[in-house]
Amino acid sequence: MYLVGAGPGDPGLLTLRAASLLASADTVVHDRLIHPGVLEHARPHARLIYVGKEGGGDSVRQEDIHTLLVQQARLGRAVVRLKGGDPFVFGRGGEEALALEEAGVPYEVVPGVSSISAVPAAAAIPITHRGLSGTVTFATAHLAHETPDWEHLARSETLVLFMAGRKLEEATHALISAGMSPGTLAAAVEAGTWEHQRVVEGTAATIASRVREAELGSPTLLILGAVVSLRSQLTSLVANT
Amino acid sequence: MYLVGAGPGDPGLLTLRAASLLASADTVVHDRLIHPGVLEHARPHARLIYVGKEGGGDSVRQEDIHTLLVQQARLGRAVVRLKGGDPFVFGRGGEEALALEEAGVPYEVVPGVSSISAVPAAAAIPITHRGLSGTVTFATAHLAHETPDWEHLARSETLVLFMAGRKLEEATHALISAGMSPGTLAAAVEAGTWEHQRVVEGTAATIASRVREAELGSPTLLILGAVVSLRSQLTSLVANT
Repeated sequence: MYLVGAGPGDPGLLTLRAASLLASADTVVHDRLIHPGVLEHARPHARLIYVGKEGGGDSVRQEDIHTLLVQQARLGRAVVRLKGGDPFVFGRGGEEALALEEAGVPYEVVPGVSSISAVPAAAAIPITHRGLSGTVTFATAHLAHETPDWEHLARSETLVLFMAGRKLEEATHALISAGMSPGTLAAAVEAGTWEHQRVVEGTAATIASRVREAELGSPTLLILGAVVSLRSQLTSLVANT
Repeated sequence: MYLVGAGPGDPGLLTLRAASLLASADTVVHDRLIHPGVLEHARPHARLIYVGKEGGGDSVRQEDIHTLLVQQARLGRAVVRLKGGDPFVFGRGGEEALALEEAGVPYEVVPGVSSISAVPAAAAIPITHRGLSGTVTFATAHLAHETPDWEHLARSETLVLFMAGRKLEEATHALISAGMSPGTLAAAVEAGTWEHQRVVEGTAATIASRVREAELGSPTLLILGAVVSLRSQLTSLVANT
């Protein structure tokens, strides 16, 4: 059993190891938001099982995914559990690994290119830059039990918020209330590294309404901080997207 | 000109796009800490130019790397600038991209698997986990002009410190003074994903002396937070490393 990161979308960002494991898998258990060009690396007769979750709703419960993985492994199949981005970065890969441990199923984890760095890069935004930012904080509202520590997040040099789509207005309000300057530069990236990627720019104060006007959908990544200013200087990169 | 991420070490974590660009490059300009198995993807007659920096010293100045890249591109060569991890994550890729912009050299950025997530994974530590951590902060002492905002860093659910090798004692002292609990779980990973990877465990209070006893060298990544506890439960992963 292999817990494998598929990267952010662009099939060229798949790792060599992931491509080779896909090419020899009997069964591929995959999420939503896996690019069709990634799944093409699987063998023609491999069984593809879709366990994606639409929007916020759980179409397949996490526990049922665990049961499915253990069942497939016990059938003696070579199984690739293919997850968007990296399995251990906002990917619930830790929970799946624990379930495999408990069931005594041997497994490996194969890291992937994470959206947290590749999606800003695809929008011509380096998340660290000398003189602008030496620290980055990544957060999501989906994983934590409690309310995020907005004061901590507001103080980040660069802040990257995952899946910020529908919660964007709430998040930017909370950040400004917690001390972030309303003029902090912001960019929202829909479907980063995919063919239909879109980027919307603004500030902490304006980005939520800009995103609403542009009707940006899920998945959206929000980047806040002075590094967003580099986008206007890296015009060759912007031209490529 | 391509600014390409080589991943954290393990050649299997190279992306398909990176491998294909290496296979057609005339010139490969690379850093220290690129695995020999990665460089094997270059053509036998490609020119490999080493511009790595040893330890903290600049053996090749950043400005000289910029000049070299522009020169090679103007000679009409297909150039891959190969950087450890991801070019835009603590990699100074932004500075190189700006230099290429200024010189009017067309370029692309190809993200790689970043050490910030792959190295903790190689030590059986998911950096996010439901109920343990929904936010992660990454920092380095090398990029910022000023003193790091230790109070901000001390408040992270998961904190990952880059290149913490020689500065480990100073950093953990500063974090504890800034409010981090001395009992916060800690792991230091030397040469993550390489064949000679080593992991040392402790707490915020003890990790610096544990690392000194074990004589861990550079590059070392320090991970602090409750997620380090998962390492003791993910025993199959630990057995693989």
